[in-house]
Amino acid sequence: MKTYLDCYPCFLRQALGASRLAGASDEQQYAILQQVLGILQGLDLTVTPPQIGNQVHQIIRDELSLADPYRSVKMKSTQEALDLYPRLQALIAEANDPLDCAFRLSIAGNIIDLAIIPEADLWATVERVLSQDYAVNDGDVLRQRLGEVSEVLFLADNAGETVFDRLLIETLDVPVTYVVKGGPVINDATLTDAQQAGLDQVARLVDNGSQAPGTILSDCSDEFRDMYNRAELIIAKGQGNYETLSEEGDRIFFLLQTKCELIARDIGVPVGSIILKRG
Amino acid sequence: MKTYLDCYPCFLRQALGASRLAGASDEQQYAILQQVLGILQGLDLTVTPPQIGNQVHQIIRDELSLADPYRSVKMKSTQEALDLYPRLQALIAEANDPLDCAFRLSIAGNIIDLAIIPEADLWATVERVLSQDYAVNDGDVLRQRLGEVSEVLFLADNAGETVFDRLLIETLDVPVTYVVKGGPVINDATLTDAQQAGLDQVARLVDNGSQAPGTILSDCSDEFRDMYNRAELIIAKGQGNYETLSEEGDRIFFLLQTKCELIARDIGVPVGSIILKRG
Repeated sequence: MKTYLDCYPCFLRQALGASRLAGASDEQQYAILQQVLGILQGLDLTVTPPQIGNQVHQIIRDELSLADPYRSVKMKSTQEALDLYPRLQALIAEANDPLDCAFRLSIAGNIIDLAIIPEADLWATVERVLSQDYAVNDGDVLRQRLGEVSEVLFLADNAGETVFDRLLIETLDVPVTYVVKGGPVINDATLTDAQQAGLDQVARLVDNGSQAPGTILSDCSDEFRDMYNRAELIIAKGQGNYETLSEEGDRIFFLLQTKCELIARDIGVPVGSIILKRG
Repeated sequence: MKTYLDCYPCFLRQALGASRLAGASDEQQYAILQQVLGILQGLDLTVTPPQIGNQVHQIIRDELSLADPYRSVKMKSTQEALDLYPRLQALIAEANDPLDCAFRLSIAGNIIDLAIIPEADLWATVERVLSQDYAVNDGDVLRQRLGEVSEVLFLADNAGETVFDRLLIETLDVPVTYVVKGGPVINDATLTDAQQAGLDQVARLVDNGSQAPGTILSDCSDEFRDMYNRAELIIAKGQGNYETLSEEGDRIFFLLQTKCELIARDIGVPVGSIILKRG
């Protein structure tokens, strides 16, 4: 997905919100905004929004001299999701259709997203997503493909959301490679974050070698790109992965909530929709 | 009121929304945003937001080669308000406290504001504002002052809102000078717009010699500044006048709805409040 002019104000808003969350002083916030304005000037609109987001969050890390400004936020999100884990597990166990329940919980976890919504009410989101109609539902094709493949490549999104993905992986009857970021960016999950959520107990845990949000293939390691190219079936979580991989063909199934007006418009659904969409 | 870092994304959002409303092509929207980014770089945060808004809307007019991009929008807003005029007049006639009803209607009209809310449901706003508690209410002091002075200087805001101000002026028992902008900016009322609303029938109609939003005194004509300096009592409508005149002393009474988070915070009330506040 390309970058729209409507993304300009949003990049500034995100830069300001993320700076404050990371404890930036007024002077640091001003310096960060000035640098982001520099990036937006003369911007090439054919790049995807996460490519700009990548630069924005590099600026924040550099200005604050912090390698992982949201480490404590991520730990808190993961712990809060872990606290719900037994209740979520019970929901799946008691469901008429455990796999659909697990799809929905994985999508519910996508509410955790510092870039858009600083604080999410997790349990309220779970209850909403369990009863909400899908705006796009390619679940039947995904079920069929899950029965045909020998492995799934699962592209993670945010810390905390990982716990909800873990429940889906535990429900699947096929081995999973769970792919996190190669370095900290916003609250995207890294190896450390995924380990805290227990993903190493249910999947082969790897990183993509990239510190960008979403999955910018050209920025990833050769090792990950090989894995990606060979994958029969890919589950990709969240808006960032949709923005960067929406043109990448029908091996990919996107699980997300639409939180941005432009992404919702690109998919052809309202903001606040739950999506299980084949690429 | 000074400009906050939070105003940066808002200026871009407003520039984009206003450009589109004025019919800008994608290329023109891009060119406008690039120039606004230039203004935001190295911005002096001690200036008031309307001083930046002034430059933003100058860029839009220049880029589109249109002296008054919102002329038709303003005519439509004024006509819609005029259509309600008999019903609004009846509300005041039947009110237990006609002056308070007229204050409230003037504040209700402040919902018309292209910079913030492109389309307002006027009658719904009237009903809400008639029953809503004031978040700040210096109405008793304003009533007292209205009984003591020989004239009121009334600083207008947007086209359409003018009709609601007309009802307040008709209810006052003191001569009014109604001050509009010296040239078109966003949907702020000019002499032409105020005449369409019939303000020339109920007040002495003058312009302030400035094409900036709000009232930037240094940008106004000598003639207006004299009038302003001599005024015993000033009624100032809307956020722009609050942003530019909030430090100008207790001769001024601000009538507005808080539509911006930062202005609301400056006043110490929630967004969506109705305000009758002495400076």
